[in-house]
This record gives sequence, C-alpha cells and structure tokens, in this order.
Amino acid sequence: MPHSTRRAALRATLRDRELDALLVTNLLNVRYLTGFTGSNAALLVHADTDDNAVFCTDGRYLTQAAAQVPDLERVIDRPCDAALVGRASKAGLDRVGFESDHVTVDGLDALTEAGDGVELVRASDLVEQLRVVKDDAEVEALRMACAAADRALADLIEHGGLRAGRTEKDIARELESRMLDHGAAGPSFESIVATGANSAVPHHRPTDAVVKDGDFVKLDFGALVDGYHSDMTRTLVVGRAADWQRDLYRLVAASQAAGRAALEPGARIPDVDAAARGVIEAAGFGEQFLHGLGHGVGLEIHEAPTLSRAGDGTLLPGMAVTVEPGVYLAGKGGVRIEDTLVVRAGAPELLTLTMKELVELC
Amino acid sequence: MPHSTRRAALRATLRDRELDALLVTNLLNVRYLTGFTGSNAALLVHADTDDNAVFCTDGRYLTQAAAQVPDLERVIDRPCDAALVGRASKAGLDRVGFESDHVTVDGLDALTEAGDGVELVRASDLVEQLRVVKDDAEVEALRMACAAADRALADLIEHGGLRAGRTEKDIARELESRMLDHGAAGPSFESIVATGANSAVPHHRPTDAVVKDGDFVKLDFGALVDGYHSDMTRTLVVGRAADWQRDLYRLVAASQAAGRAALEPGARIPDVDAAARGVIEAAGFGEQFLHGLGHGVGLEIHEAPTLSRAGDGTLLPGMAVTVEPGVYLAGKGGVRIEDTLVVRAGAPELLTLTMKELVELC
Repeated sequence: MPHSTRRAALRATLRDRELDALLVTNLLNVRYLTGFTGSNAALLVHADTDDNAVFCTDGRYLTQAAAQVPDLERVIDRPCDAALVGRASKAGLDRVGFESDHVTVDGLDALTEAGDGVELVRASDLVEQLRVVKDDAEVEALRMACAAADRALADLIEHGGLRAGRTEKDIARELESRMLDHGAAGPSFESIVATGANSAVPHHRPTDAVVKDGDFVKLDFGALVDGYHSDMTRTLVVGRAADWQRDLYRLVAASQAAGRAALEPGARIPDVDAAARGVIEAAGFGEQFLHGLGHGVGLEIHEAPTLSRAGDGTLLPGMAVTVEPGVYLAGKGGVRIEDTLVVRAGAPELLTLTMKELVELC
Repeated sequence: MPHSTRRAALRATLRDRELDALLVTNLLNVRYLTGFTGSNAALLVHADTDDNAVFCTDGRYLTQAAAQVPDLERVIDRPCDAALVGRASKAGLDRVGFESDHVTVDGLDALTEAGDGVELVRASDLVEQLRVVKDDAEVEALRMACAAADRALADLIEHGGLRAGRTEKDIARELESRMLDHGAAGPSFESIVATGANSAVPHHRPTDAVVKDGDFVKLDFGALVDGYHSDMTRTLVVGRAADWQRDLYRLVAASQAAGRAALEPGARIPDVDAAARGVIEAAGFGEQFLHGLGHGVGLEIHEAPTLSRAGDGTLLPGMAVTVEPGVYLAGKGGVRIEDTLVVRAGAPELLTLTMKELVELC
C-alpha cells in the first residue's frame, strides 16, 4: 500500500514539527496520500497513528471514495476542510497544521470558525517535500506516461503526419489523439508544435502556420497517465537540414547530454544547470538560452525541484526531472531537446526513449 | 473595447468601497479585464482612471502580452503580485484591495512585505460579481461553444458513433474529437458518457462499459471556445425505449421545460429551482433528483449564480446559466436534460440547440 507508506512518512514529519495533525486540502496532496481522484476532498492526518486519519468528500463521490479510499474513515460533508477541522476540535487536538500555501485568506477564516479550541498552525510544503522523491508506483506511472508520448510520436512520423503542408494545429491534434491511443487520459499540458521561425518562441502555441520544406519543427508535449505527467521535446527538420540548423542542433544536443550526465545524487542544483549552460555559453549563445534547465515532474507538470541557476539544494535518488536546454534565434528558428529522467545512483534512468539524433524527414 | 468597459465597471465598484485600487490575481479575472490568456499575470486597477492601470506578466509572455494587452502599461517581473503591490506603494496608494478568496495565507505575507505603507484590504468577489452578467462578446463566445457541442453530437449520431457495442470511452473520445472539428480548443470539462445503469450515476466517468440495445445513454459534455464553456446534457435510447424509460424521460423533459420557463429577469433563484423540482416532486421522484437545478457558465464551467433551493438573489438579464434537472433510478438508469441559456426579458435565449424530444436510435 503505497498510500499508507506515504502517510507514515508524513506522520514522522508532523512529529518533528510538534503538530498533532495536518489538514491536507491541496487535492494533489490528498490524491498522493489516499489515491482519491475526485474534484473535492480533504484529509486529516494525525501524527500518532493512521487509525485516526479521516477522509472527507461530498455526496457525488460516495461510491468512488469507498472504492478508492477503502482503508480510511470516510466523512461525507461539505465544505470538507471545515468539517475535518471540526473533527479535530471534537477530538481535542491542540496544534493542527494547515497548508498555508494553499488555504486562502478567506478560507482560513472559515477554518478558524470551525476549529473551536484548535490552534491552526502554518505548515506549507510538507507533502510537496515528500513528493519530490518518487516511489516505485510513481515511477511506473511516469514510465507509462513517457511511453505513451514516445509511441505517439513514432506513430505520427511513421504515418507521415509530420510533413510540409500541414499546420501546427493539425500536427498537435494528431499527436494528442495518438497519445490517447496509447493509454493517455489526455495531454499532460497544452502541446507545443512550432514550425520555422516559430520554433524560436520557447512557449509557442500551435497556430495555422504551415510546415515548409527545410523548417525546424519543435514538438514539446507529454501524456497524462494515472495522474502523472510526462514531458518531452524533440526538434526535427522537415526536409534537408541547412548547415546552421545542423550546428545549432549539435550544440543543444551536447548541452543536453552534459545536463543528463550531471544528474547525480548529491549534485548541487546550480551545478547541474551550469553543466548544460556552460556548453551553450562557451559557444557564444548564452543569451539565447532563455530559461532554466528543467523542473520536477509528477502529479504536476511543473513541481519541485526547479533546475536553474537560482535553484538551491541537491539532487536525491528518486527525483524525477526534465533536462531541456534550448537555443532560440529570434526570427530564424530554435532547438530544444528535453527528456524526463529519474535521478539514480550511477546514471539517471531515462524515461523518454525517443532518439535524440538529428532527424531529417525527407 | 469590452475590456476597458469592464475595467470601468470595476472602477465604479472600487469607488463605492473606498478602495484606491484592486490587485487582481485570479487569472480568470485578469483575462476578463484584459484579454490576456497566459498562465502567469496580475493586474492593478486604480479607482480613478484607466490610465494608471498596470499589467504584469513574466518574460515568457513578452510578445503575447504586447499583442493581447496593447492598451495598458506592461511590467515584466516575477512574482507579478508583489511587483504590482510594490508599484502601488511607490504611487503612494493607501487602500489597495486584494482577492482574499484567491490569495493564500502565505501569499498575503509576501504582499504585505512588498507593499510598504499600503493597507491591504480584503476584497473578494468584486470581479466575479461583474462576470455574472455577460456582455455581447461573452455571449458570442458562449454561442460558438454551444454550437461546437451541438454540431459534434449531430456528427456523432449521423456517422453511427452512438450504437450498441461501443464503449463509453470510445464514444466520449469521438465526441471530444468532433468538438475540435467544430472549432473547440478542447472539451470544457471531462465528458460524461453513461450507458444503461451507469446513467443513474450523476457524475459518471466514461468506462469500458459497452452500450447495449435498449440502454439509456446519457451524454453530458461541452466545448471550450475563446475561454468560454458550454454545457449540455442529452439522454437518448439506443434501440426502442421501454415504457418506464419513456415515462421517466417525459417527466424530466417537463421539469426542464418548467425550469426554462421560470428563467425571467427578477425571478428569485429558489423559485426557479422550485419550478422545475416541483414537477418531479409531484410525480413522487423528488428524492431521486439528487442535485441543484443549474449553475452559471462563462470563463468557468461552474460559476455564479448557483440555481438551487439554497441559492439566493434574483436573476438578471444577461446571466448565462444551465437548467439541468435529472432523475436517477439507482441500478436501473437515469435521465438528465440540460441546456445553456441566457436570461433575457421576455424569454431566455437558448444557446444549446440540439432537440430535446426522446430520440430512439434504431
């Protein structure tokens, strides 16, 4: 039972902080700790034992909650957060943490009203800090999400979906549809398909622009499987690559390889960014690498840790992150290459398996 | 310029509340007031003049912000909310409202730190209250969203997509794909396709269950166009309807017609709910009508006003709402019929045009 194991880790954190319980209201954190996937729920985790944990949702999810959260006491009430603080009050708890980076100013008023005798203590980021290191069940979901994206891109290319004359929007739609064919519940974020000069816009949204012979086509996309997000970017050339495209591609590929190689348990995060960025800076394109190197992925498409110059902390085994350097030549074209990987002792585990050689689709 | 007109209405609200400015951080409210569609932004609206309004986003959206928000001063900074409170402080503003139903407890700390000399005043729901009455541009977007859903359902049926032997998931996927064919950016929420006994579950998620001859199939779905959400439910019979299905359908259709007829400017919201609910209660099925009558739709799939027994307030011309009674016979089947409409003097404007007679697909 990964969920009870995760709650046990949280209980240890609560005891460290001298909290009697934590009110979990961030739905992703509730899902992480219980497996519940509905749109309204909260969870009260006691510091002492899992037997006292209480889960709350509303009447729409009566059946679903019984199936997904069979191991916890379930309360059907609305609003859930106030109902659980009321329970904490009745149980005579003193110090109850709440997710102060999630509860709104008005929301805290309602909790205060419901929690007679309870001291509500700010406790942000406790579950998120557990979530940075993925357990086996999470890595398996990420692996399936990455595989769905790999297969969709392979299908797209094999069936001639990436060719001159098609619009960015058409390609994005086919890519997303093919991810569904391979088990995705949906795309993990709005797909980026950028052709020609549009490839120089880091977060371009697909338009009616038509792929022309000789264009870079940058595809940044991912699949959502069991709530977990994959994230991959590949940049290809439709037709023959010009020399400048080949040079730019090689540079970014070298930077990306350096970034992957720097993913080691214990590595300082700014050093990982520097390993990849240094390659691009040495070639004189530092100003054209417009963003950080990568980010954590999991139940959110962007989560901790952030891999950037300004990032802090060190990598831990089991962290799932992207490595995605890019160089963008405004008005001309850009290249980004991105993988999703898990930090492991020895070498990182690559989850996005699509090859990264320069592909010319002729 | 609908956005400047909307900001003018907000300025009048701010003067009523003796606020010097409002910090808008809810992204949907920022979009409503500026047209900006990116994922990170904030807006400072001064009570006195639109000339002082300041929009903030981060570097990723430099070009997009210039295109979408050409009429306002633009600041590129991160985090946006603190940057704008800093601006308010420098401008010597005294009372600055913040969206206390959106800003988190931790977020308020950061604003307080950035806003030297500024009194941060709780001001929830100001923009949302403007949003309940839709202007012409909004109704046009809703109309297009509803048309995309109507056309998708017509296509699905015409091409034989709704037939015995298909799974709920397959039907949902085809419906969503056909909405894209008709201009939707995506589904406006997770589509509900529920066959046979599953139709008795109000918020059923599509499964691998197969449609069988004689089944009710309940389809609750909508399209997203220009940020606006349509919402429609139709329940059909695949094959010949049994007598109990015909009776149940007629009952819900009569209730839905009564609900639509009650949508008049000035009508009290609980009375609108009662008009539809009374028909079902009189037939002895009040306990099987498990939810409220409807809800507002716009930039959110569920927004004010809530049409339910517990709702308060009165309808205003220009409100966009759903009317969606349902009767659910557990283990057997259920019927829900839902339209999206705009409240108008005389009669409501129906935006979902698919017919509501009982359809038997033979």
